[in-house]
Amino acid sequence: MQTTSELMACNPFLSYRISISFSSLCKTLSPLLRTSISFPTRSPQFNPIRFHSRSMMANSFSWDDVFRISQADNDLDDSSDLQGFFERVKACNRGCEKKSEFIPFVIEQQIVGYIHNRFANHLREFHNVFDFLEDKSYSSHFGGYITLNPSLKSSEDRTEAVADVINCLGGLIPGTRNELYPVTSSFGKPEFFSLERAAAPYFGIKVYGIHMNGYVNKDGNKFLWIGKRSEVKPTFPGMLDHLVAGGLPHGITCKENILKECEEEAGLPRSISNRAVPVGVVSYMDINGYSFKRDVLFCYDLELPDEFIPTNQVQLNVTDGEVESFKLVPVTHVMNIIRRVEFFKPNCSLVITDFLFRHGYISPENDGYLQLLQSLRSGDCS
Amino acid sequence: MQTTSELMACNPFLSYRISISFSSLCKTLSPLLRTSISFPTRSPQFNPIRFHSRSMMANSFSWDDVFRISQADNDLDDSSDLQGFFERVKACNRGCEKKSEFIPFVIEQQIVGYIHNRFANHLREFHNVFDFLEDKSYSSHFGGYITLNPSLKSSEDRTEAVADVINCLGGLIPGTRNELYPVTSSFGKPEFFSLERAAAPYFGIKVYGIHMNGYVNKDGNKFLWIGKRSEVKPTFPGMLDHLVAGGLPHGITCKENILKECEEEAGLPRSISNRAVPVGVVSYMDINGYSFKRDVLFCYDLELPDEFIPTNQVQLNVTDGEVESFKLVPVTHVMNIIRRVEFFKPNCSLVITDFLFRHGYISPENDGYLQLLQSLRSGDCS
Repeated sequence: MQTTSELMACNPFLSYRISISFSSLCKTLSPLLRTSISFPTRSPQFNPIRFHSRSMMANSFSWDDVFRISQADNDLDDSSDLQGFFERVKACNRGCEKKSEFIPFVIEQQIVGYIHNRFANHLREFHNVFDFLEDKSYSSHFGGYITLNPSLKSSEDRTEAVADVINCLGGLIPGTRNELYPVTSSFGKPEFFSLERAAAPYFGIKVYGIHMNGYVNKDGNKFLWIGKRSEVKPTFPGMLDHLVAGGLPHGITCKENILKECEEEAGLPRSISNRAVPVGVVSYMDINGYSFKRDVLFCYDLELPDEFIPTNQVQLNVTDGEVESFKLVPVTHVMNIIRRVEFFKPNCSLVITDFLFRHGYISPENDGYLQLLQSLRSGDCS
Repeated sequence: MQTTSELMACNPFLSYRISISFSSLCKTLSPLLRTSISFPTRSPQFNPIRFHSRSMMANSFSWDDVFRISQADNDLDDSSDLQGFFERVKACNRGCEKKSEFIPFVIEQQIVGYIHNRFANHLREFHNVFDFLEDKSYSSHFGGYITLNPSLKSSEDRTEAVADVINCLGGLIPGTRNELYPVTSSFGKPEFFSLERAAAPYFGIKVYGIHMNGYVNKDGNKFLWIGKRSEVKPTFPGMLDHLVAGGLPHGITCKENILKECEEEAGLPRSISNRAVPVGVVSYMDINGYSFKRDVLFCYDLELPDEFIPTNQVQLNVTDGEVESFKLVPVTHVMNIIRRVEFFKPNCSLVITDFLFRHGYISPENDGYLQLLQSLRSGDCS
């Protein structure tokens, strides 16, 4: 295994000194500057403008591109400007003005989710499973709410009946993966039933996950282990990711989940992952078409030994590996990546921004400090 | 100077093993247990029931009492129960149902504060300084708002005119101390004028402060330096406090303020205090009579060397010292103090609870984790 010192010799992310010309700096930073800078020629191997389009985020950059973006630093790009961080938070909190298009999904007098009125029309035919009731108690724009048929009393019955509906709906809910999420009114409360992970945003249920910042502290300089997702992942292929992250499935605690994911996603033995520290949460609410994401991410920090190198255990066993590769990146460079481009899987940007706050990389002297900090918990954090 | 190891030998807070009988445990814990336990005799030197009354918080306990409360641990007192923490947060967030009794205080079309309608009557006679205007724009229960007379254009003129009013009001605003707080719409925005610190809650302006958790990490076990306020302090005499804390006065940044307060309150040289890390904020809104507190506290962590012993510079120079004495207390014991009794100055409990979250002492496995975390930012955090 390589130590951090050895890595510093071969990993460009760990080299602080780099010569960069003004013209290449303009190319790198051009999409990020508010004033327009024209440059006649573009490097054939790298065009940062591509990365400004959300639709082109995935599959469109290499570690070399990440390296260039993370490095550039000059007077034109104010490192104290939090604008880029606000944009990342905004990207996870779209469409709040469209909440009125959704109908409350209620079980045992508790709102557990929100279903888009047009998606709900597809559920109407399953009258043995879903009931549409008129009642203004839940302040719905549509004067009613959706619930499960009272004949479905047990958690098992409900889980099975809703799963059958999801199967019948076929392509309307893509990417089913036979992973169940608990449906509750809030975290830790009794589970009313379990729902296919891919269907969660269509029912607008609260979804919980765990995200871990794995970092190395080298003489006071901190480095984050960053993953690059496999190009064959169905969601966010090729994007940057945490060392360890995952949804919180049915029947497992956060602590058990973090240990499991550490082992599977980074090859971390329990002797190390046991030291992972829960440090808070970030939350967001994102409406996009029929999808209403209400996510709460439990954040963990894990200080790793110098000599540790992550290996993806899933990648070794199956063809659709989670992560293609990992690199150790100075936290100051990770900041530049988040500020400047949308390379990270969107919710990872939020969890890393929370890390930057807690570790003093963003300080009260930065204009917008309080607003950005508050925006990291835009979602209903319960 | 003593090292932590040396301190462990003489400071009862650093001794983990202590023999405690069941009867003394009942006495210590009785006010904290939901089930009633009767005990016929009470120790003359210590009666924990006294501490359950908010009005008797101050001037009523010694370090020995703190020590006893912090130690006791048994099956009847569930250390994973967050109830005590919720109570501390609630104590800083009283009276939200009374917000309608306040009239918006507006300057240059921005709400900068809230003034109680009955307190406002005292301001009416100063018609060269305050204007009472009818206007429903600011959704006031009273159909109007209070502003400064338009003849007061400059910050200096406003500051002077309002100060004169405060002097005229005399005993209505007790404890004036000639310390000015900036009046703004939100943090970092231009200052409309400056207001006497003691008057801030009567005008309901947003007040910013800095609080620092000074801690020592000894082989993975963390200890917090805790202060006990002087018995002659006009506010919260005798209560427990942070190593360093203070309001953020007019014309000074958080960073400059933390360095200044570290020196004054704990004798910390800049070579050490420079390492203080900004880690986030807590906020609260508290209504009590005419007083409307809207406080935002910038939190800092500072890991201190083993051998450092704080000394209060103010105490050495003047008679009304800030802090009587400091002790180094295991974080797990600090948790017990906060959970069980109201010994800490109320807002310190919130900042320490935030520390407990960030350092993993409170975890997602604790029932109420998310609600408690969110409640630490109950105030308008802007």
